[in-house]
Amino acid sequence: MAYEFKLYRQVEFADTDMAGVMHFSHFFRYMEATEHAFLRSLGLSVFPSSPAPLILWPRVQAECNFLAPLRFEDQVEIHLRVREKTEKRLTYGFRFRRVDQGQEVAQGILKVVCATVDDQQQLYSIAIPTAIASQIELAPD
Amino acid sequence: MAYEFKLYRQVEFADTDMAGVMHFSHFFRYMEATEHAFLRSLGLSVFPSSPAPLILWPRVQAECNFLAPLRFEDQVEIHLRVREKTEKRLTYGFRFRRVDQGQEVAQGILKVVCATVDDQQQLYSIAIPTAIASQIELAPD
Amino acid sequence: MAYEFKLYRQVEFADTDMAGVMHFSHFFRYMEATEHAFLRSLGLSVFPSSPAPLILWPRVQAECNFLAPLRFEDQVEIHLRVREKTEKRLTYGFRFRRVDQGQEVAQGILKVVCATVDDQQQLYSIAIPTAIASQIELAPD
Amino acid sequence: MAYEFKLYRQVEFADTDMAGVMHFSHFFRYMEATEHAFLRSLGLSVFPSSPAPLILWPRVQAECNFLAPLRFEDQVEIHLRVREKTEKRLTYGFRFRRVDQGQEVAQGILKVVCATVDDQQQLYSIAIPTAIASQIELAPD
Repeated sequence: MAYEFKLYRQVEFADTDMAGVMHFSHFFRYMEATEHAFLRSLGLSVFPSSPAPLILWPRVQAECNFLAPLRFEDQVEIHLRVREKTEKRLTYGFRFRRVDQGQEVAQGILKVVCATVDDQQQLYSIAIPTAIASQIELAPD
Repeated sequence: MAYEFKLYRQVEFADTDMAGVMHFSHFFRYMEATEHAFLRSLGLSVFPSSPAPLILWPRVQAECNFLAPLRFEDQVEIHLRVREKTEKRLTYGFRFRRVDQGQEVAQGILKVVCATVDDQQQLYSIAIPTAIASQIELAPD
Repeated sequence: MAYEFKLYRQVEFADTDMAGVMHFSHFFRYMEATEHAFLRSLGLSVFPSSPAPLILWPRVQAECNFLAPLRFEDQVEIHLRVREKTEKRLTYGFRFRRVDQGQEVAQGILKVVCATVDDQQQLYSIAIPTAIASQIELAPD
Repeated sequence: MAYEFKLYRQVEFADTDMAGVMHFSHFFRYMEATEHAFLRSLGLSVFPSSPAPLILWPRVQAECNFLAPLRFEDQVEIHLRVREKTEKRLTYGFRFRRVDQGQEVAQGILKVVCATVDDQQQLYSIAIPTAIASQIELAPD
């Protein structure tokens, strides 16, 4: 059972914009990368293929509050914690810190729903499979 | 005085991901493109340069609720409305609709603060200049 | 029969980097958007689905020569011309011009191969279907 | 003196497109990330600031040949080698390999020019500063 994960990465040049800081849309890419690394840390395939049914995690909500900018080459810690867990949904909370200063620069949320696809490739939500749900628990306050 | 704007665009191949839908991070790029088109529609330069002081609009918060997927080549209407206006801040609300069906696929929020830079290129917030504030008003409920 | 197409677009904030210009990787996105608009202008579906077999155009080569920078809000003309056409492949040439000045800012090439997928979702190249090949011709020198 | 560098990274979900593979434009981002990691490995600041003059490396040419697709979660080795070195320019060659198979999936080139900016923020090329040029040499054949 796990409820948290930390990913470390460095801001790349292509992540910056003409204001000289990381473009805000990339915070969401960083959150998703952390979510996927968390699942892999549990030995879970992010997109399991046959013979199991395909599992997808469509986003229901994404949010980020920006406290300070990130700049090129900044080393960042993204700290994921499981904030909600229901039969079909998970909510992850994220805190971004600059590694050199410890300064918190952003807080984010991703709400995702467990889904699979029917014969027409249409998504529909399902209960989180036990093999996954049994490994993920709510983070303590 | 204006309080809304509609931008139309078509989902591009590079905006899709392996789930066959637009990657959720691109909804935020679409919101920002709509915000900038709104400012241009008022004759406002998004990044005014000399002799005026540089104006930037750093994001304070960004949020999106996803109701249905967008797919490659979907025609999308992004409807911006001014939701809050204070001395230093603007909050924009966004509704994404598929043009062919009228279906609402997402709702978003961007909270931005008016800022400029000091001699050390550090950002600090300022009151929205009158030339801008006088042209933007709150949308009716 | 067609051999050229012009797409117009405006550089977006999210396309810029901290050097204050459009990041070079986005020139490739712009080329692909022009390629797809060219195919649509011929009434061709970029990704035809059933009952026809799925057609994909994997990139074999992509190249861009950068002559001058593009900046935020620059209006750009991307001029596609068909440079080579064989049984299975198409080569597109692109010229990027700033609309306000007429200045050529970049030249690019995309070589693409016509492909479909087998039962295991593996790509393999095929002859360009006649319905497509009959509409595309080589541009004159 | 150094003439090569290897960067390892894993394909992220946001790098994929609806064809199920890494979008071709991201190969260029990966090349640039490798170039920057190479410079950092030499103790060189990618964007040195005061008191030294600002050094930028605008791209003159970028090219990639695609041999096989990369997919989500593939581990990739990007092998940079210095292919040309003149007074003002560097040309880097890149080979992309899947770590699990050793399979070469792409070959790329980036030609960059050393530049700085004048008082009007206009770029102009300069000789590569000795502190940089003295550390970089041509790779053997």
